[in-house]
Amino acid sequence: MKAVVIHAAHDLRVEDFVNPPMGPNDVEVRISNGGICGSDLHYYHDGGFGTVRVREKMALGHEIAGVVAAIGAKVTAVQVGDKVAVNPSLPCNVCKYCLEGKPRHCLDMRFFGSAMRFPHVQGGFREMLVCSEVQAVKLPAGMALERAAFAEPLSVCLHAANQAGQLQGRRVLVTGTGPIGALCIMVARQAGAREIVTTDLSDAPLAIARKVGADLAINVRNDADRLSKFSADKGYFDVVFECSGSGPALASAIAVARPGAVVVQVGIGGDIAVPLNVLVAKEIQLRGTFRFDAEFDWAVDFLASGAIDVAPLLTEIVPMGDAVRAFDLASDRSRAMKVQLAF
Amino acid sequence: MKAVVIHAAHDLRVEDFVNPPMGPNDVEVRISNGGICGSDLHYYHDGGFGTVRVREKMALGHEIAGVVAAIGAKVTAVQVGDKVAVNPSLPCNVCKYCLEGKPRHCLDMRFFGSAMRFPHVQGGFREMLVCSEVQAVKLPAGMALERAAFAEPLSVCLHAANQAGQLQGRRVLVTGTGPIGALCIMVARQAGAREIVTTDLSDAPLAIARKVGADLAINVRNDADRLSKFSADKGYFDVVFECSGSGPALASAIAVARPGAVVVQVGIGGDIAVPLNVLVAKEIQLRGTFRFDAEFDWAVDFLASGAIDVAPLLTEIVPMGDAVRAFDLASDRSRAMKVQLAF
Amino acid sequence: MKAVVIHAAHDLRVEDFVNPPMGPNDVEVRISNGGICGSDLHYYHDGGFGTVRVREKMALGHEIAGVVAAIGAKVTAVQVGDKVAVNPSLPCNVCKYCLEGKPRHCLDMRFFGSAMRFPHVQGGFREMLVCSEVQAVKLPAGMALERAAFAEPLSVCLHAANQAGQLQGRRVLVTGTGPIGALCIMVARQAGAREIVTTDLSDAPLAIARKVGADLAINVRNDADRLSKFSADKGYFDVVFECSGSGPALASAIAVARPGAVVVQVGIGGDIAVPLNVLVAKEIQLRGTFRFDAEFDWAVDFLASGAIDVAPLLTEIVPMGDAVRAFDLASDRSRAMKVQLAF
Amino acid sequence: MKAVVIHAAHDLRVEDFVNPPMGPNDVEVRISNGGICGSDLHYYHDGGFGTVRVREKMALGHEIAGVVAAIGAKVTAVQVGDKVAVNPSLPCNVCKYCLEGKPRHCLDMRFFGSAMRFPHVQGGFREMLVCSEVQAVKLPAGMALERAAFAEPLSVCLHAANQAGQLQGRRVLVTGTGPIGALCIMVARQAGAREIVTTDLSDAPLAIARKVGADLAINVRNDADRLSKFSADKGYFDVVFECSGSGPALASAIAVARPGAVVVQVGIGGDIAVPLNVLVAKEIQLRGTFRFDAEFDWAVDFLASGAIDVAPLLTEIVPMGDAVRAFDLASDRSRAMKVQLAF
Repeated sequence: MKAVVIHAAHDLRVEDFVNPPMGPNDVEVRISNGGICGSDLHYYHDGGFGTVRVREKMALGHEIAGVVAAIGAKVTAVQVGDKVAVNPSLPCNVCKYCLEGKPRHCLDMRFFGSAMRFPHVQGGFREMLVCSEVQAVKLPAGMALERAAFAEPLSVCLHAANQAGQLQGRRVLVTGTGPIGALCIMVARQAGAREIVTTDLSDAPLAIARKVGADLAINVRNDADRLSKFSADKGYFDVVFECSGSGPALASAIAVARPGAVVVQVGIGGDIAVPLNVLVAKEIQLRGTFRFDAEFDWAVDFLASGAIDVAPLLTEIVPMGDAVRAFDLASDRSRAMKVQLAF
Repeated sequence: MKAVVIHAAHDLRVEDFVNPPMGPNDVEVRISNGGICGSDLHYYHDGGFGTVRVREKMALGHEIAGVVAAIGAKVTAVQVGDKVAVNPSLPCNVCKYCLEGKPRHCLDMRFFGSAMRFPHVQGGFREMLVCSEVQAVKLPAGMALERAAFAEPLSVCLHAANQAGQLQGRRVLVTGTGPIGALCIMVARQAGAREIVTTDLSDAPLAIARKVGADLAINVRNDADRLSKFSADKGYFDVVFECSGSGPALASAIAVARPGAVVVQVGIGGDIAVPLNVLVAKEIQLRGTFRFDAEFDWAVDFLASGAIDVAPLLTEIVPMGDAVRAFDLASDRSRAMKVQLAF
Repeated sequence: MKAVVIHAAHDLRVEDFVNPPMGPNDVEVRISNGGICGSDLHYYHDGGFGTVRVREKMALGHEIAGVVAAIGAKVTAVQVGDKVAVNPSLPCNVCKYCLEGKPRHCLDMRFFGSAMRFPHVQGGFREMLVCSEVQAVKLPAGMALERAAFAEPLSVCLHAANQAGQLQGRRVLVTGTGPIGALCIMVARQAGAREIVTTDLSDAPLAIARKVGADLAINVRNDADRLSKFSADKGYFDVVFECSGSGPALASAIAVARPGAVVVQVGIGGDIAVPLNVLVAKEIQLRGTFRFDAEFDWAVDFLASGAIDVAPLLTEIVPMGDAVRAFDLASDRSRAMKVQLAF
Repeated sequence: MKAVVIHAAHDLRVEDFVNPPMGPNDVEVRISNGGICGSDLHYYHDGGFGTVRVREKMALGHEIAGVVAAIGAKVTAVQVGDKVAVNPSLPCNVCKYCLEGKPRHCLDMRFFGSAMRFPHVQGGFREMLVCSEVQAVKLPAGMALERAAFAEPLSVCLHAANQAGQLQGRRVLVTGTGPIGALCIMVARQAGAREIVTTDLSDAPLAIARKVGADLAINVRNDADRLSKFSADKGYFDVVFECSGSGPALASAIAVARPGAVVVQVGIGGDIAVPLNVLVAKEIQLRGTFRFDAEFDWAVDFLASGAIDVAPLLTEIVPMGDAVRAFDLASDRSRAMKVQLAF
C-alpha cells in the first residue's frame, strides 16, 4: 500500500506504507480523493509552520473521502461499501475541554497528518486508512467523493462562521481568497449575508470568488482605494473573515470594520502587528477560530444536499503518483484553487 | 476664572479662561475635584497620542465633580447647590451610532478635554464649567466630591467589564495596575470574579492592587515565571483586562488565557505585535473597549453607595496652582496612583 | 381618494379618505399593492385584539408598496416616479428606547393602521399615502410591487430570526404555517438551517411550506405522532419559531425542543398555559419577538435580489373595490396564504 | 447506620439504611449537615412533584456536607479527615449532552435523593454516604460544615445567574423569597446588581431578604401597587429571577420587566398561564434554569471565602432524630428559611 509521505522540506515521496492493525471499533477506508491543504503545503515547502516541525516521516493529508473496505467487529454505523468522508479529528473525550463541549481544544487530540504531537499522527494521503468508526461519516450513495473531500475545509469555515455570530443581513468582508477564503464566501452566502466583499493580491482567485458569491472582489495590489473607501464614517463591515494571516490584510480589515464589528482570524499568521488603538477606539472584536467540532457533520449535509456547491473550487484531480506535481500546482495561486489527489 | 491649560508638550499653564455663555439647558458647575488621567499625561508629556495632537491651547481634564452654581432657564434635573459628577461625553443623539444605542461611537462626539476634533473641546480643569444639563449627574448631599471625581475612570472599567461578558465565578487577569487596572480589579471583584491575578512592572501599584481585591499580584519584571506557569494545559484565565497597552503584556496575556477566553484591550497601544497563531489556536477573543455610555450612572451609584470604594487609589489632592507638580507626581508610578487637582 | 376603512367588527368599507397635508420631509406615495395581515383580519373579525380596540374609523393596512407621486421640499432620498416599499414604523428617535437602538419599543411609535394609540394611526390601504421620507424605501426600477409589499412581513420574520441567534447548521421547527410561518421557513432556509420541519392543522399551507423550503411538513391534526417522536432523548430542535399563538402548539414545541433550545414566540396569543416544569428542566428559552427595526431594509434587499422569493405565497391580488371579498378569502386558510389588494 | 427515608407522602421515617460497597474511586463521607430543600418537602407532602413520584422508599437529601471517613484505593483528591461538600450530581460523561459541556442534561444522570429514575437514587440524609471521588469537594479545614451544606442551593442560584447574563449595573427583581429566592438576591448582589427588589406573600422572608441585600422588599399580598408602578414606560427591571413557580408572580414579573429583559424561571411550576402577548410585545426572554454544573465549585469557593455569607438564612439545625419536626418547621414560611438536619 502506498502513501504520500513528507520526509523533510522539499522531500515528498510516494512510498510504501503499513497500516496499523484494526481494532473492533475501527473502519478501514479505501481513500479515493484527498484535497491538498495549506498546512500540507507548509510541510512541503517549509517542513512545518510556527513551532510545529516534521521530526519523522509522516503521511500528509486530512481532507479525505473514500469507501469502506472493512469494519471492526463492533462497528455499527457503516458497512463495507459505504461511501464516507473521514473526519480527521479524534479527541480523547475525557479531558476537561472535551467535557466542556470543546473537543477541538482537546489536550490529547489525534489529528490526521499533523506533526503537533510526537510520534506524529500519520495522515490520510494513502490508499487505505484505518480510522475510528466515529470518524467515518456515511455519505449518500450517489454523492461524488471529490465533493465529499471538501467536508474538512468546509467545516473549518462553518466553524469560523459560528465564531462570527449571526450573518443574515450582515455585510461581510473576506480578506484572502484562497480555498478557505472562497469557502468562507460560500458559507457567508449560505448564512444569508446581505453583501460580501472579498480581497486578494491575485486576479485568478478573485474571479472564482465572484462566481461563488462575492458581490465585489478587489485586487488590493492594484486597487487598494476601492477597499479603503469603506472606512468612511468609522467603517462599513459587520463581520470580517481574515483568511490571509498577513499583517496588512488584518490592518486594512480593522480599518474598514464598523464599530463593534467581529473580525474572525482564520488565517494563521505569526507575530503580526495589529493597530490596537483602532481596535480599541472602534471596539473591534478579533476572534480566533480553530478547526471545528460538530460542523463536520453539517458540512457533509450541505455538500450532500447541494446547499453548498464546491465544484467551482476544484482545479484538478491529480493521480497520487504525481503528488509532487500536484503540490507544486497547489502552490501556484495564479493557477490553482483546490487540488486533489486521486488514490 | 482660572484653568489648567496645555499649550504644547511640557507647556502646562494655570491661566485665565473665559467660559462660553450658558444656554437654557446648560448648567454652570463650580469644579471642586479633577482627577489626572493617562491621556492628560500624554498631552503633557507628548503633546498628544497617536494621531491626536494639541493644535491650539486647551484646558485639560475630564474626571471632574463639583457643585452647581447656576442653571439655565429650562433645567429641571439639578438645582443650584447640588453636588454633581460631570459626564464629559456629549454625543449628538442623531447620528446612526447614537440611534443604534452606541453613543460612545457618535460621529459628532464632544468630549471634554479632547483634541480629537478642532477646535478642541475644552476640558474640565477649571474653576467654573458650563455643561449640558444631561452631563451633570446629581449626587447625594453627603457624598465626598473627591470620590465622585472617580466616576469617569470607573465608568471606563465598568464598560470594559460589560465587553468582557459575565465575570461571576470567572478567573480574571489584569495586566498593568495603574489607576485603570486597579479599578478593573475592583470592578471584577464587585462583579463576583472567583480569582483575580494582576501584573505590573512596579511594586508600588501592586501593593495597592492587593488592597483593592487582587488575590495575587505579580511583578513580572522580577517574577515572570509566576505568571507563565498559568499557561499549563493551554491556559487558566477566563477573562483578561489588558490595561498596559504594551506588546509583551498582551502576548503574555494570550499565553495564559484559556481556550475561548476574552481579552479586553483597555490600554491604548499603537501597532502592537500579537501572536496570532496562539490567538487562533486557542480561539482567544481580543475585544477593544472604548469609553462608556450608561455606565457613568452606574459608576455614580456604586461610588455613592460604597459598593466600590476608591479611597485606596487616591494618592494626593494638589491645589490647582501646583498643577505642574501634580502632573509630575501623577507621572511617577512608584509614588502615585491617582492624583487629583483641587480648584 | 378612496381607502379601505374599518368602522367596527364586520364593518369594513371602501370610502372617501382625506390625506393630511404634506410636510417638507414627507413623500406622497400612490399605493399599488397592499398585503392583508393577520392583524388586519383581527380588526375585521373581532374589532381588535387583546386590549387593542378600534375606537374610531381607521384605514387598515401596513404591508404596502407603490410609486412616489410627490415629494416635500427637503426630500432627497427619493424622486417622483420611484418605486418604494413603505416602512409602516415611525419611531420618535428621542425616547430612551430609540436611543438604546430599539426603536421598535419606542414610547411614541406611530405605526400605520394600528389602533394602539388614539387617535389611531391611519393605515396604508388607500390610493394615496403621505409618509415621512425615511419610511419610503427606494426599490430597483424593475422590481414588481407585489413582491415589494412583502417587505413588512418578511422584516418581521428576519427580526424573529435575529432573536433566535445563529441558524446555520441548526435544526428548526416552525409551528403554524400561515404567511408568517411560511416566511419564517424561507428565512431559516436563507440563514442556512440544516433541517426545517413545520406543522399546521391544514393541508393547504403545508403544501406551500414544502415548496418554500420545509424538509418535512406535518399535519398535527392527523399525524401528531410524527412530531412527538422528536421528543426522544430530551428533544431534537435547536430553534423553534412558534407562529400560531396557540397553547397546544407551544407545548408541543417545548416538548420537542432540545435542552437549551430557543423558542421564538412570533404568534401573539393571549394568556397561554405553558409547561413551565419542562421549560425549566430543559432550560428552554422562550423569546418574544416584536416587529422589526433595520430588518426592513434587509427585506427589501433580499426581495430585490431574489435571495428570498415570495412568489409561492401570493394567492391572489384583489381589486380594492372587492376588499370585503379579499378579507374573507384571506381568512380562509384552506384557500389562501397571502391576499393582496390592488389600489 | 440511620437515614431519613420517605416511604410515601406524609410517611417520613428515620430508619436503618445499608450503604452499597465502596469502589476504588469512591469516598465514604460521615455526613454532618443536610439542608432540607423544597423538593424534599414535595416528596414529604405530596409524594413527588409533576410526573416524578416516590415508587419505593428513598433516603432524601442532596444539600450535604461532612467529613471523609474512608477512601477507595485509587482516590487521590481527598484524604480521611478532610471536610467535604458533596455534589449530588453524577453525570455519565459519555452521553451527547455531557460531551456538549452540559452534564446537567445528562441522559443518565444520577442525582442523590431523586425519584426521577427507578430504582431511585438514594439521598444524602444518612449518617454515612458513599459517593464518587469527583463528588467530594474538599473544603478548607476551618470551614463550618453548616455553611458548606449551602453549596448545592447556592450552585443552583449561581447557575441561574449564569443563564441571566450580566448582572453588574442591572436592575433585578426576585419574585418569591424562599431559600432559593434569598440566595438569588445574594448572588445578584455579589454579581454587582445596581438595584434589587424582591417580592413575597409573607413578611418573615422579606425581612431576611432586606438583610441579605434587597434594596426593596414588597409584600405583594398587601402592597401590590408598589410593584405594579414599575410597569410604567413599558417596565423597569433588566433581569428577573422568578423563584415562586406561581402564575401570578410570573405575570407580574413580565409586566414590570423592561423590553428585552430576561426572566429566569427558577421555580418549577406546572402548566402556568403566561401573558404571551406582553411577552411578545416587550420581547421578554423567559429562560428556564436547571440545577448547575461547574457552579458547585464556585459555590464552595464563595462560601469558603465569605464572599457570600449564608448565615442569615439558617433558621435551625435539628437533630436527625427529629426529622419530622424539622420537615414541618421547614414547611412553615412564617417561621423558617432554611432548616438543616444534623447527623
